[in-house]
Amino acid sequence: MFQNFDDIADPSRGPLRVAKLREQLVHDGLDGYLIPRADEHQGEYVPPSAERLSWLTGFSGSAGAAVVLADAAALFVDGRYTVQARAQVDADTFEILQVPNAKLSAWLGDNLKAGDKLGYDPRLHTIAEIERLGEALAKQDTGLVASRGNLVDAIWQDRPAEPLGQIAPHELRFAGQSAANKIADLQAQLVEAGDDATVLTLTDSIAWTFNIRGSDVAHTPVPLAFAILHAQDRPEIFIDERKLGDNARGHLAAVATIRSPEELSDSLSRLGQAEARVRLDPNRTAQWFVEALEEAGALITRAPDPCLTPKARKNAVEISGARKAQLRDGIAVTRFLAWLDIAAPAGGVDEIVAAKKLEEFRSDTGELKEISFDTISGAGPNGAIVHYRVTRSTNRALAPGELYLVDSGGQYEDGTTDITRTIAIGEPSDEMRTRFTLVLKAHIAIATARFPQGTRGCDIDPLARHALWQAGLDFDHGTGHGVGSYLSVHEGPASISKRGAAEIEPGMILSNEPGYYKEGAYGIRIENLVLVGELEEVAGGERAMMSFETLTLAPIDRRLVVVSLLSDDELAWLNAYHALVAGEIGPHLQDDDRSWLKAAAKPLTRVAS
Amino acid sequence: MFQNFDDIADPSRGPLRVAKLREQLVHDGLDGYLIPRADEHQGEYVPPSAERLSWLTGFSGSAGAAVVLADAAALFVDGRYTVQARAQVDADTFEILQVPNAKLSAWLGDNLKAGDKLGYDPRLHTIAEIERLGEALAKQDTGLVASRGNLVDAIWQDRPAEPLGQIAPHELRFAGQSAANKIADLQAQLVEAGDDATVLTLTDSIAWTFNIRGSDVAHTPVPLAFAILHAQDRPEIFIDERKLGDNARGHLAAVATIRSPEELSDSLSRLGQAEARVRLDPNRTAQWFVEALEEAGALITRAPDPCLTPKARKNAVEISGARKAQLRDGIAVTRFLAWLDIAAPAGGVDEIVAAKKLEEFRSDTGELKEISFDTISGAGPNGAIVHYRVTRSTNRALAPGELYLVDSGGQYEDGTTDITRTIAIGEPSDEMRTRFTLVLKAHIAIATARFPQGTRGCDIDPLARHALWQAGLDFDHGTGHGVGSYLSVHEGPASISKRGAAEIEPGMILSNEPGYYKEGAYGIRIENLVLVGELEEVAGGERAMMSFETLTLAPIDRRLVVVSLLSDDELAWLNAYHALVAGEIGPHLQDDDRSWLKAAAKPLTRVAS
Repeated sequence: MFQNFDDIADPSRGPLRVAKLREQLVHDGLDGYLIPRADEHQGEYVPPSAERLSWLTGFSGSAGAAVVLADAAALFVDGRYTVQARAQVDADTFEILQVPNAKLSAWLGDNLKAGDKLGYDPRLHTIAEIERLGEALAKQDTGLVASRGNLVDAIWQDRPAEPLGQIAPHELRFAGQSAANKIADLQAQLVEAGDDATVLTLTDSIAWTFNIRGSDVAHTPVPLAFAILHAQDRPEIFIDERKLGDNARGHLAAVATIRSPEELSDSLSRLGQAEARVRLDPNRTAQWFVEALEEAGALITRAPDPCLTPKARKNAVEISGARKAQLRDGIAVTRFLAWLDIAAPAGGVDEIVAAKKLEEFRSDTGELKEISFDTISGAGPNGAIVHYRVTRSTNRALAPGELYLVDSGGQYEDGTTDITRTIAIGEPSDEMRTRFTLVLKAHIAIATARFPQGTRGCDIDPLARHALWQAGLDFDHGTGHGVGSYLSVHEGPASISKRGAAEIEPGMILSNEPGYYKEGAYGIRIENLVLVGELEEVAGGERAMMSFETLTLAPIDRRLVVVSLLSDDELAWLNAYHALVAGEIGPHLQDDDRSWLKAAAKPLTRVAS
Repeated sequence: MFQNFDDIADPSRGPLRVAKLREQLVHDGLDGYLIPRADEHQGEYVPPSAERLSWLTGFSGSAGAAVVLADAAALFVDGRYTVQARAQVDADTFEILQVPNAKLSAWLGDNLKAGDKLGYDPRLHTIAEIERLGEALAKQDTGLVASRGNLVDAIWQDRPAEPLGQIAPHELRFAGQSAANKIADLQAQLVEAGDDATVLTLTDSIAWTFNIRGSDVAHTPVPLAFAILHAQDRPEIFIDERKLGDNARGHLAAVATIRSPEELSDSLSRLGQAEARVRLDPNRTAQWFVEALEEAGALITRAPDPCLTPKARKNAVEISGARKAQLRDGIAVTRFLAWLDIAAPAGGVDEIVAAKKLEEFRSDTGELKEISFDTISGAGPNGAIVHYRVTRSTNRALAPGELYLVDSGGQYEDGTTDITRTIAIGEPSDEMRTRFTLVLKAHIAIATARFPQGTRGCDIDPLARHALWQAGLDFDHGTGHGVGSYLSVHEGPASISKRGAAEIEPGMILSNEPGYYKEGAYGIRIENLVLVGELEEVAGGERAMMSFETLTLAPIDRRLVVVSLLSDDELAWLNAYHALVAGEIGPHLQDDDRSWLKAAAKPLTRVAS
């Protein structure tokens, strides 16, 4: 099993740990301290040694930040995590606030006095974060102070060691482009911009560039490492030698100089001595790098990590791999759905049983390297917790008359998958069916959307919300995120969301996952991955448009669809999708499952009025 | 007549004037000069004395900028103006480029050498513009240099004098809130932000704050003036005394200190001597103010003009006025459309005749103070020029088989109107009808949209484009803009467009005007003004939503509608809108016109299939 169901939250620990941190604040002459959910690489998953926010507060979500002052403390989370945070965190110790309505800077303005000093660990915050916060605090005459070392580490007695996950080369038959070739392309970018070097700190950028995969953090096959990419010289990669077998060492040594993480400071100093122009991504690189480089004499230029766009635009080999991974994953998910349809009504299926069974079907493929993330297996009201993680204490039976939401994915060497299905257990209510159908309309609006060159993710997002807004409903998360190729299941730079400022480009793989959540009752989400196609002429039109091709293959629960709420085009899409699923998945199933799929994928028809 | 049809463009003058400007460049030791279409107030309309861009290049559009170097020159315009610019400007002298695809900074990078100095007039560029351009140029080691005086003025022999339009108080029965009251509200904003003062440079902000209206520029009833709003003291308004009759002087003197424009520098110096915190809007205030204030010792803070949001959110009196203005204007437009339907097929109607006739119907109301802008009266291919202005040389007959696009508006003391209708002259083609219907679907998508608090204009814009994108079509302008109350027909801060970052708020009046343009053939646009309603519960929903109420009242050409392309909801909207128009406008028409409207507003029905 890649997933465990341990209860990791324990609100009772918060008060004592916060009290210790406050002693440390006094010791360090600070009036407050920031505790982000981040490591030095700003990735989504962090190793246990970097789970400082969770250790201090109990909150185990993938995004958030706490601030502890002498006599106040707050935890800031987004709309996905408010319900979870309330369950995991001691509310007497931490005020729980939802961004973006609540703002850290505003809270600090209300709670800090002029002259106060707020400490932060410069390795855990991006350049842009510190800049924004510094400006906001300067207005109220409070200072932002980089701490030497991390104050949480100072009080965290049994902090786990840093991981030493083994690294493997990512083969060319999956990557589609050699590391040498990628490095040459990136160097050309640097030369064109007049930069001498850039520092890569995102682990998936490093994994992509060097065609390596690691196992330092859960679910995402990245190694914790840093790299310096020189416009003219060989790249340097900073990585613990113990993670490298002979195979990986040889692969890396062919294109880069391998150095230990301890040598990073010296290499940055050398860039400074050479008065190099060093490009840093202010939104993704830790503030510490600015300080180290500027102190050494380097000139900092600002631009996005050069890997972001080429990594996001999958090449032909990666696209072909994604199709294979989707077929394989779709077979596993379809088998699971068929099993669920018989097992759940018979009783005895709970969220953990279901999540285990789903992982089992994926393991059965013989190709599963990891799951993409902890399966969100939420029955009834647990389905309304957007990033729900089932534990033994929250585990709930799949009961008749309730909805079951399952969001999961697999890491395969040829591709990363991510799929959500919402299933009616027994007889759903009319409200459930109506709202499921509105979410389906939102999903289809994205699946069928055409859009011109230059369209950003934020220009697509409203198309999904339209049907929900008209009904007085909405959901508090983005409609979609980028997905890596045997890499991060949440990959930048593009997202289909209100903040999605990156342009959608051909070759990107994105999720399409609108939802609806009724707190305390049920959750609905329908998620497929889509591939962005090339600009193409539209019959009868004038401007070439891009569109999405749905990659994910598994039936959508027909029993939850109110056909009369669908337009003819929407109904046609659903039936065509089910025909595709039946045609692709069906031949790979055993008899019983194939019969089940045939029924589950049967065309829906309009009742003559 | 408020409109004239003179040919103001003359590409032949460009080369000579540019040659003179180049002599001036040498004289001033500069390598280039920027000529924006802007005055000191950054308003949409500028007085003839500030029409430097038009004088130099021939281009008469409302937005654009030229740059002249020793051996190259370029004119940058947006998608609305590319066709017009090509017709008005000498292409041998000026390279014509379309923003945002083409970028001024990129062009300068290609055409300037390291060490070159580019001059600009700091009174004509906003703080943000100069900052962005300065950063871009610094990268390539070229400098941006503020010129003393304007280089175009130095060579413009017969430059018109600055206008002296009379100023009138804007009565409380139209404004709904006294100037004293508005000033107190604005002062409270300054106090809350800790600012000592702000400089108002937008003429419509000044007109709104002090409840005055002027006549210095065409179509928009604003006075050219500046004001300093003090957090604690009386405001100062800087205005030429010759513009003030006794009535206006008394009205202003009751709430402000009246000073001459020459005294502005002294007042800014006083702010500096007092080391005041002065708030400037970087996107709307000229760079000159930063220099004047910082030199004097003031501390600049940055925040939007405090009038923007209260001005945009109309109060109950202004909303009631808008309804009256719309009814009055709708009667005039409907009479025009009825006249057009008989006169055009009979022959003899051309674009100028039509524009004159429309102004005549508006004048007949007895309440018309001005037209909101030069009527866009475009037949056939002229309709495809988005901001077309008819002149005697471009004038075209309204010919059978063509479309006629008319975009116009009236300035009434109780409200500003803006309406576009597209009319079939004779028999339209199937393509015209199909594309008109797609634009109508876009229009209805906005008219019927619901959306939650926090929705920005850019979140609404894609709803309009969706139907067009699906058909491989699009349009190169925003879907809507804010509209003032007897003020600017294009009013910030909100817009329904890709760049519309301001949130849509209750009380705002916006245009809803998607379009489609086939260059060289025809143009389609359907524009109504809409009022943003308060947040309201939606039956069966959970979240309160805002929605739009359509204010404009005039029929939409039914002959151009392909009913089979409309959904049931869309068809119902169109028929309900026509019923509203017939009910509101009909009783105010004479017999013939009423009969015409009855037919023009008749419900459309689906042909049974």
